[in-house]
Amino acid sequence: MPVIKIAIVGFGKIARDQHYPALFDSPAYQLAAVASPDGAGPEGVDRYDTLDAMLDAVPDIDAVTLCVPPSVRYVLAAKALARGKHVMLEKPPGTTLNEVAALQRQAEKGGKTLFAAWHSRFAPAVEPARTWLDKRKVRSVDIQWKEDVRVWHPGQDWIWEPGGMGVFDPGINGLSIATAILGQPFFLRKGVLEVPANRQTPIAADLYFESTDGYPVSAVFDSRQTGPQLWDIHVTTDEGRLTLSKGGSQMFVDGELQHEAEEREYPGLYQRFAELVESVGSEVDATPLQHVADAFLLSERRSVDPFYWNDLEPSE
Amino acid sequence: MPVIKIAIVGFGKIARDQHYPALFDSPAYQLAAVASPDGAGPEGVDRYDTLDAMLDAVPDIDAVTLCVPPSVRYVLAAKALARGKHVMLEKPPGTTLNEVAALQRQAEKGGKTLFAAWHSRFAPAVEPARTWLDKRKVRSVDIQWKEDVRVWHPGQDWIWEPGGMGVFDPGINGLSIATAILGQPFFLRKGVLEVPANRQTPIAADLYFESTDGYPVSAVFDSRQTGPQLWDIHVTTDEGRLTLSKGGSQMFVDGELQHEAEEREYPGLYQRFAELVESVGSEVDATPLQHVADAFLLSERRSVDPFYWNDLEPSE
Repeated sequence: MPVIKIAIVGFGKIARDQHYPALFDSPAYQLAAVASPDGAGPEGVDRYDTLDAMLDAVPDIDAVTLCVPPSVRYVLAAKALARGKHVMLEKPPGTTLNEVAALQRQAEKGGKTLFAAWHSRFAPAVEPARTWLDKRKVRSVDIQWKEDVRVWHPGQDWIWEPGGMGVFDPGINGLSIATAILGQPFFLRKGVLEVPANRQTPIAADLYFESTDGYPVSAVFDSRQTGPQLWDIHVTTDEGRLTLSKGGSQMFVDGELQHEAEEREYPGLYQRFAELVESVGSEVDATPLQHVADAFLLSERRSVDPFYWNDLEPSE
Repeated sequence: MPVIKIAIVGFGKIARDQHYPALFDSPAYQLAAVASPDGAGPEGVDRYDTLDAMLDAVPDIDAVTLCVPPSVRYVLAAKALARGKHVMLEKPPGTTLNEVAALQRQAEKGGKTLFAAWHSRFAPAVEPARTWLDKRKVRSVDIQWKEDVRVWHPGQDWIWEPGGMGVFDPGINGLSIATAILGQPFFLRKGVLEVPANRQTPIAADLYFESTDGYPVSAVFDSRQTGPQLWDIHVTTDEGRLTLSKGGSQMFVDGELQHEAEEREYPGLYQRFAELVESVGSEVDATPLQHVADAFLLSERRSVDPFYWNDLEPSE
């Protein structure tokens, strides 16, 4: 397999913490350049202010990975595809469903790879869980995704602004795992979104889905969780109860640990992207984002206590 | 072409006003039965309480058309497809995007026709407008969909309940036309939804989209319109300004009437459905519903005056 000349677009926190180390360690890739306007970039790698400037200067780049905020992702992805590059998108793949659909059509038409990456699907116990469930009959599913937004997104007001998705920013990771391990689709039947009186997006969600066969799937998301953080999926089957814990890194059956491994989500993502580029295939599963859009479309909204980043600033 | 034995499921107002007359007049169909629990049905046609009872009693039905509320549409459509019937869905094709996607996969797998009908696309001036625009370069689009909910949905509280979509119940018709006549997709960039303080769904929406080429598409929806009702789409091009008026029944260019014809939306729908059944093809375009979901996902919500059906019942 020839080495893929790849460029990172947007060299912010997620690029530094996850994408750059994964690419640095992989023999499948050569990091050819970085496009990032803020002057930062990894040592020894050419940096350009814009995607266009980078592609003009380094025309033999094969692929780009987009680590920019969702709001600018469509324009950059469409441009990269138009210039003949394979594209990997961080989650969520866009701010709207229609732009994801348009990128998918564009990639297909141009014969390029588009990979909408859901990093949580590459957590180590996800594939073992899928395999285990494949042989059993599911009775019910319970998704619990509860974390403290003050710890994980301190001061990041964008999460409460229109399009920021609030509690669905972490919750979509749980949905991306659930949709990957269950053998059949499920649909939202009803939901409640709790929205702080001074914010636009929900801080908590209580969702009730049904699968095509009619088994219940419930999901409880909460961004106000203090103490132990919960990223768990429980699946009751005809042969025991599976628990995927810690965001897919541990798998239990009837309380006994079956599988645990070192976290390697981003190396897994890039391995998958390399396979897709090699076969000129695409993988664009919008289902998790559709679930979020369905939740906004169908749920009852309840106004709850205003949210402030700390108790001392109720006058912000 | 053999006559299609069709059944109507859900014999409410839209079935009586539109579906039954269209089927009665068409030589392509024979109305074989009706499934409707409320005891009503057209004279001389066998009526059953449930879809299952009907399909048991009249097994040679070829196709069903679903005129039931969106909330029960998925279960009935999945059952009809599973029993080998072609299915036509009234708009919107479901309450969630994921159930529409699942029906599409099921129809494909089973080799049956699924038709997600957008009746406004069959308004008489829509196809002439599409043809006219196909030869011109669009500069901007302005959708104005303003009607009085008290006239068109008097007392129908479901429209204000979660999933009822509020102003998008009529607005989705405008979106279904715009997506049909414009040659390229457009995506929501920002929006404002005005939600009555005592209701769940918006009574007005102000949306700003961009097309893939970057031309602006604005949409203003309002359910509080008294006086003249507006269902207009204006498209400014390099060769004049097209206006589709009265919900797609009149086409003007630079103010001059070019096309006007008798309203025949439902006969047009059933003609299209017959063609699809004949070729065992499907037509499921979820784009208008995706736009609505995108609007709920991405827009700012503003609380506005409470809504009451009449000024005398502010204590309801």
